[in-house]
Amino acid sequence: MEGLLTINNVWMMICTGLVFFMHLGFALLEIGLTRQKNTINILFKNLFIITMGLLLYCLLGFNLMYPGEFNGFIGFAGFGLSSPLVDGSLDLAYNEGYTYWTDFLFQGMFAATAATIVSGAVAERMKLNSFMIFVILYVGIVYPIAGSWKWGGGFLDEMGFYDFAGSTLVHSVGGWAALVAIWLLGARIGKFKDGKIGAFPGHNMPFATAGVIILWLGWFGFNGGSVLSADPELTSLTLVTTCLAAASGGVSSFLVSTIMYKNYDITMFLNGILGGLVGITAGADQMSPTDAILIGAIAGAIIVFGVALIDKIRLDDPVGAVAVHLICGIWGTLAVGLFGKLAGFDQFINQLIGVACYAAICIVGSFIIFYLLKITIGIRVSAKEETEGLDMHEHGMDAYPDFGLNQH
Amino acid sequence: MEGLLTINNVWMMICTGLVFFMHLGFALLEIGLTRQKNTINILFKNLFIITMGLLLYCLLGFNLMYPGEFNGFIGFAGFGLSSPLVDGSLDLAYNEGYTYWTDFLFQGMFAATAATIVSGAVAERMKLNSFMIFVILYVGIVYPIAGSWKWGGGFLDEMGFYDFAGSTLVHSVGGWAALVAIWLLGARIGKFKDGKIGAFPGHNMPFATAGVIILWLGWFGFNGGSVLSADPELTSLTLVTTCLAAASGGVSSFLVSTIMYKNYDITMFLNGILGGLVGITAGADQMSPTDAILIGAIAGAIIVFGVALIDKIRLDDPVGAVAVHLICGIWGTLAVGLFGKLAGFDQFINQLIGVACYAAICIVGSFIIFYLLKITIGIRVSAKEETEGLDMHEHGMDAYPDFGLNQH
Amino acid sequence: MEGLLTINNVWMMICTGLVFFMHLGFALLEIGLTRQKNTINILFKNLFIITMGLLLYCLLGFNLMYPGEFNGFIGFAGFGLSSPLVDGSLDLAYNEGYTYWTDFLFQGMFAATAATIVSGAVAERMKLNSFMIFVILYVGIVYPIAGSWKWGGGFLDEMGFYDFAGSTLVHSVGGWAALVAIWLLGARIGKFKDGKIGAFPGHNMPFATAGVIILWLGWFGFNGGSVLSADPELTSLTLVTTCLAAASGGVSSFLVSTIMYKNYDITMFLNGILGGLVGITAGADQMSPTDAILIGAIAGAIIVFGVALIDKIRLDDPVGAVAVHLICGIWGTLAVGLFGKLAGFDQFINQLIGVACYAAICIVGSFIIFYLLKITIGIRVSAKEETEGLDMHEHGMDAYPDFGLNQH
Repeated sequence: MEGLLTINNVWMMICTGLVFFMHLGFALLEIGLTRQKNTINILFKNLFIITMGLLLYCLLGFNLMYPGEFNGFIGFAGFGLSSPLVDGSLDLAYNEGYTYWTDFLFQGMFAATAATIVSGAVAERMKLNSFMIFVILYVGIVYPIAGSWKWGGGFLDEMGFYDFAGSTLVHSVGGWAALVAIWLLGARIGKFKDGKIGAFPGHNMPFATAGVIILWLGWFGFNGGSVLSADPELTSLTLVTTCLAAASGGVSSFLVSTIMYKNYDITMFLNGILGGLVGITAGADQMSPTDAILIGAIAGAIIVFGVALIDKIRLDDPVGAVAVHLICGIWGTLAVGLFGKLAGFDQFINQLIGVACYAAICIVGSFIIFYLLKITIGIRVSAKEETEGLDMHEHGMDAYPDFGLNQH
Repeated sequence: MEGLLTINNVWMMICTGLVFFMHLGFALLEIGLTRQKNTINILFKNLFIITMGLLLYCLLGFNLMYPGEFNGFIGFAGFGLSSPLVDGSLDLAYNEGYTYWTDFLFQGMFAATAATIVSGAVAERMKLNSFMIFVILYVGIVYPIAGSWKWGGGFLDEMGFYDFAGSTLVHSVGGWAALVAIWLLGARIGKFKDGKIGAFPGHNMPFATAGVIILWLGWFGFNGGSVLSADPELTSLTLVTTCLAAASGGVSSFLVSTIMYKNYDITMFLNGILGGLVGITAGADQMSPTDAILIGAIAGAIIVFGVALIDKIRLDDPVGAVAVHLICGIWGTLAVGLFGKLAGFDQFINQLIGVACYAAICIVGSFIIFYLLKITIGIRVSAKEETEGLDMHEHGMDAYPDFGLNQH
Repeated sequence: MEGLLTINNVWMMICTGLVFFMHLGFALLEIGLTRQKNTINILFKNLFIITMGLLLYCLLGFNLMYPGEFNGFIGFAGFGLSSPLVDGSLDLAYNEGYTYWTDFLFQGMFAATAATIVSGAVAERMKLNSFMIFVILYVGIVYPIAGSWKWGGGFLDEMGFYDFAGSTLVHSVGGWAALVAIWLLGARIGKFKDGKIGAFPGHNMPFATAGVIILWLGWFGFNGGSVLSADPELTSLTLVTTCLAAASGGVSSFLVSTIMYKNYDITMFLNGILGGLVGITAGADQMSPTDAILIGAIAGAIIVFGVALIDKIRLDDPVGAVAVHLICGIWGTLAVGLFGKLAGFDQFINQLIGVACYAAICIVGSFIIFYLLKITIGIRVSAKEETEGLDMHEHGMDAYPDFGLNQH
C-alpha cells in the first residue's frame, strides 16, 4: 500500500533530520567541555565530519555497508548511488519502510557519528590535517565494513548478534577509535603532573547542556528511526525506553557522583544522560520501561566510575567520550543478553562475541591509521600551538574575538 | 484502519519530541534572563526536572492523571506503566490517535513543564535541595491530580470547563506555584532597595532569544499534539492560531512597551511572544485567525502591565514567569468564553470556575510544600552564597570558566 | 483518500516547523558573524521579521501571492484569510497535499525569510525604524507580488521558468534587496580605509556554526516541503540532493579558500554550506546525487570568489549575504538549465529571463523603499551610535551585561 510507505517514509525522513541534528549536539557538547582557545578547531572538525562523511558515504560507504549478497566479512556493491528503477521510476517496492533515497540518507547520517565521537576525545591537541585523514579512512572504510557484519547481513547477523540502533556498531566503533587515539596522542600538557590530575574545566556549560538536550532529541530519531518503519508499537515503545533510560542515567549519575564527590556536578549529570542513551541503544526495541530504567541507571553509575578509571590509567579524554560511548556501548550491548525479550545465556554469549569482533576491527583499524599518521605527518600539534590554542594557529581566529572589549 | 493509527502516532511522537525540546527553550530563556553566576544552578535544575519528572510520571503521575473511572477528584490506577495487551501484543485499539506508549510519553513531557516554570521564578536564590524536593512533590503528585480534574475526565471536565492544551492545566499550575514560591522566598538582595527597583539584567540575550524561538517551535507540538491525532483540519488550524497569537503577542508587547518606556526592549518582545502562546493555548483549536490575533495582542499588552505589577507589589520574578504563565494563562482560559466557537456567558462562568479550582489546589499544594520546606531545611541560600553565586557554592564550578583568559 | 491527505499534511506541518526554525538559524548566524555591540539589535530585527511577517502575510501577503485567476502580473484575493468551506467545515478537497491552513502557514514562514537575508547585510549600521518599515513594505507587498509571477501561476510560470523551492523567489529576492541596501547605506566606519579592507571578525563562532547547522536542518523543510506533499520518491530525493549539495558546498568552499588563503577559515566553510543549499534549491527535485554534488561544489567556489568580489567593489556585507543568497541563488536558478531532468537551452533561457525579471522587480522595489527612507527619516545611524553600538543606543541594553564581572 503506497499510503503506508508514505507514512513510514515520512517518519524515516524526520528521524534522518533528527540524527543530522545530533551533529549540532555533539559540536556544542564538545566545545562546551573544552577550553575556549580550541573552539573553532572543534567546530571545524565537526563541520568536516558531517560534510565529508556524507560525501564518502555516497561515494562508497553505503555500498560497503550494504553490499547485498556477500561473504559476510567484506563486500562492495560499487561506487556511487544507483537507485533501483522500475519502468524508469524509482522502485517503491525497494522496502515498505522507506525509499532508496531515505535509506541512504538515514544511514549516511549515522556514518558520520562514529567520527564525531573521536573528535571530542582528541580535542585540544590533535593536528587538524591528521584528524581529517583519519575521518576519511575511518568513516569511509572501517565504519561501513564493520557495519556490514551486522546491519549489512554479515556473519555476526547470521550468528544472532543483536544491536538494534548501534550501541556497538556506532558508539563503540567510535569509542574504540577514541581510546586508541588518546593512547597514541598522549595527554594534554599539564593534565597529569606530579602524580596529580589537572582540572581543565570546559569553557561553556550552557553549550554543553544544550548539546546534551539536542542529542537526547536526536536520539528520538537515532533509535526511533532504527525501527526502519513507523510501526506504531515499536516506534513508540522505543521512544519510551530511550527517554526513560536517558532520565534514569542522568539521575543515577547525579546521585552516584554526589555521594562520591559531595558536589552537584553538572558534567556528570550530562554524561549520565548520554550514558543512559548509549546503553539503551542496543536493545531499545526489546526492553520494558522497567528494563530501560535499570539499564540507564547502571549506565549512569558506569559513567561516574568510567570517567574516574580513564583518569586513573592516565588517559586524557576531555569530554568523557570513552566512558560514554565505549564503556556504556559495551554495557548496552551486553544488556541485551541480560534484560528484555532476548535475554538468555546464548544471547549473552552472542553479544560478547559481537563486542569482541568490533573491538578487533576497530582497534586494529584505528591503530593502523593513527600509527601511520603518527610516524609520517604526525598527529600532535606543537607544545606552543597547544598552549596558545589551536584556533589561532590552525585557523588564525578567535572564537569570540571581541568579547569583553565593550564591557562596562 | 492501522494506517491511520500509524499516521496519527507519527504526528504524536513528533509532537512529543517538540514538547521535550521546550525544555531546552526554558533552560536557555531562564539562564539568559538571569545573572552569569547562577547559570549552572539553573541548568542543573532543568536537567533534574526533565529526568526526575519523566521517572515520576512513569512511577505514578500518569496513573494519577488518567485513573480511568474515578470519583472526579482523585483516583489512582496503580504504580508503574501497564500497557494494555491483546493476545500478548500491545492493544492498538487503545486509541485511534496514538499508542499507549506515545500517550504516556507525550503526557510525561507535559508534566515536567509546570515545574520548569517555577524554576525561572525562584532563580538565583533558592536552595537546590529544597527545589528538588518541591519538584518531586509538585510534579509527582499535585500536577497529575490537578490534571485529572479536566484531562483525566474529572469533575471540571464533566462540568464543561475547557482547556485545550493547558493555559490553566500546565501554565497556571506552574504559575501559581511560582507566585507562592517568590512570595515565600522573598526578593533577591538589592532588588527592592530604598523604594527603588534594582535592575538585574540577564547575562545573555542571545540565549534568551534562542530560548523563545525554541519554545515557539516546541509549541507546534504542545498545541498541535493536543489535538491527540493528526486530524488535518484541527492540527493545521491549531498551528495557525498558535503562530498568529505568538506573532501578535510579540508585536503588541513591543508596541505597548515602546510607547510606555520609549525603548525597544527585547525582553518585552520575547515575553510578549510567550504571553501570546500561553494565551492561545486554552482555545487554540476553537479560534479563528482573527480571534487568535486578538487573544495574542491582549496577552502581549498584559505582559507589559503584568511585569510592572509584579514589581509594584514587591515580588521578585527574575524571568517574568508569573506574568507569562499565570496571568496570560488565566487570560487564555477566560478567552475561551469570550472568543471562538465556545464563546458564551455559560462557558465564561465555567472557565472562571476552572480557574478558581486550579488556583485553590495549586496555591494550597505549593504553599504546603514550600512552607514545610521553609520551616525545616530552609528554601533560601545564605546571603553570602547568593552574592557570590549559586554556581560556585552548590556546584563548585563556573559556567564559563576560562572566558577572557586568552583574549587579545 | 483522507488518510493520504493526513500523511501529506503531517509532512507539510513538520516542514513548516522546520522553516520556522530557520529563523533561529539566521539569527544565530547573523549575530555570530557581527560584533557584540550590535547583537540585541540583530535579534530584535529578526523577532520583528518573523512576527510582523506572519501577520502581514495573513493580512494581505497570502492573497497577493496566490490570487487565484489573475492577469499574471498582479492580483489580490482580498484582505485576511478566508478558508474554503463545504457544508460549514473546512474543504479538505482544497488540495491533496495539505489543508488551507497548512498552505498559509508554510508559505507564511517562507515570506519572512527574504527580509531576514537583508537583516544580515545591513547589520551594525542601519536604523531600526527604517528597517522595520522596509520589512513591512518588502515582505508585505514586494515579495508576494514577485512570488505570484511563478508560484501564484503568473506569467513566468506560464513561460516555463522553474524555481522549485526559491533559489530566486526567496533567496535572490532577499539578496537583491540586500545589495541595494548596502549600496545605499555605505560601508561600516573603518571597513574600507586607506585602500585597505578592515577585518571585522564576528563575535561568536559557536553561534554562527549553530546557526548554519540549524539552517541546514531547516532546509529539510524548506526544500522537502516544497514538494507540497509527502510523495515518497520526490521528498526523499529532495532531501538527498539538498544534503549532498550542502556537503559539497562546504567542502568545496573550504578547499578553495584554503588554497587561496592558506588558512582553515571556518566562516568560508559555513558560507560554503549555505551556498550549496541556496544553489540546489531551485532544482532540488530535478537533480541526481551527482548533479547535486556538482551544483554544490560550484556554489562553494562561488562563495569564496563572491565574498572577495563584494569586498573588491567596496560593498560592505558583514555576513556574506549577497554572495550566499544572491549570487548562489542566481547560480542555482541557472543550474536548472544546465543539470538534471530539465536541462536544455530553452530552459536555460527561461531561467535567465526569470532571473532578469526578479532582478527588475526587486532592485526597483527595494530601491524605491530604501531611497524614500533615506531622504526622509534616514537609514543610517549616527557615527557615535555606530561606534558605541546599536544595542546601547536603540535598546538601552548590552547583550551580555555582566560577562566577566565575576571571573576569577
